[in-house]
Amino acid sequence: MNGRLAPRSGVAFSLRKGEVLKVIDPEGGQVSDLLAFMSADTAEVLSNGRTFDYEETIQLTTGNRLWSNRSNPMLEIVDDTVGRHDFLLTPCSEATFRHFYRDKPVHRGCFGNLAEALAPYGIGPDAIPVAFNIFMNVPVAGNGALRVLPPETKPGDRIALLALVDLVIGLTACSAYDSCGGTFKPIDYEIEPIAA
Amino acid sequence: MNGRLAPRSGVAFSLRKGEVLKVIDPEGGQVSDLLAFMSADTAEVLSNGRTFDYEETIQLTTGNRLWSNRSNPMLEIVDDTVGRHDFLLTPCSEATFRHFYRDKPVHRGCFGNLAEALAPYGIGPDAIPVAFNIFMNVPVAGNGALRVLPPETKPGDRIALLALVDLVIGLTACSAYDSCGGTFKPIDYEIEPIAA
Repeated sequence: MNGRLAPRSGVAFSLRKGEVLKVIDPEGGQVSDLLAFMSADTAEVLSNGRTFDYEETIQLTTGNRLWSNRSNPMLEIVDDTVGRHDFLLTPCSEATFRHFYRDKPVHRGCFGNLAEALAPYGIGPDAIPVAFNIFMNVPVAGNGALRVLPPETKPGDRIALLALVDLVIGLTACSAYDSCGGTFKPIDYEIEPIAA
Repeated sequence: MNGRLAPRSGVAFSLRKGEVLKVIDPEGGQVSDLLAFMSADTAEVLSNGRTFDYEETIQLTTGNRLWSNRSNPMLEIVDDTVGRHDFLLTPCSEATFRHFYRDKPVHRGCFGNLAEALAPYGIGPDAIPVAFNIFMNVPVAGNGALRVLPPETKPGDRIALLALVDLVIGLTACSAYDSCGGTFKPIDYEIEPIAA
């Protein structure tokens, strides 16, 4: 299965154990927020804190796994042409637009797009945690200060994630100005079937 | 109200808007995991990601606020003699003991202590997010790698947090070896009444 996410949109789909999700930045300079929930019980969800605990880093790339709030591994990064992603910041939302972009129109953001896409799976807005923000460029200074810089991606850069269990995935083409360097672009995704 | 948490224990209590919660390390070298939920609707809960978003730092100290998953400020740090706390890592749990301390007895950890303390408020284990880990010393290297070092606290060091709304608080004296430098010690807390 292949798909293209229009700028500032989102989608949800099932990803079976053994399938590989590729997320591609077709034009360069775009961010994609990824969420994962266990299909068997969607109260089990991606957790940045558990992932930081077990992977012992905040900078995740090939070989790292993404963990759930119940301490189970959900996804493994099996390919990554970028090596810079963010797992600190929450999906942009109406509230973040009001906070950061006071002179710009309010948008429901990745949060609103994820909430709509996940609703058919019975997943409500309060269940949306910090997303794994693919390609998002958030350097942490020595004093802890965060900056949101444009992604370092070139056209065609990609990350691939192997599903370690059956999952419900939420995925966006990001809606915020800062994370995308002031532009809004599409995101491509592909699901590779289970290896024979 | 004053209280002392025995080593490796936890408590939950109400904190009214305008009250100040002081958390004190009476012996030095101990960590205390803090959670906060809105009293009016406990589905609204402390969020490390929203806090990092709005405070634009992962190193929180006097003047910073702690935010909820619905983008409302919950607590403001009004005094801090240490300036080093962690908001990246989840409360220690049975799973983290099995993962990190394979030759040590499994303990339910701060997670189990918080779950028990919060149950009377109708808050279940899956609702426990990343805690604000007071006094926990987790430096982030330039490549993103995390280390858990002993706290830098001296006896009597403290942090004070002003409640900006009515809250349910969960608080522990930490149970994990690494975060406390291999020792287990008590934590003191005091609630200052609303200023006249």
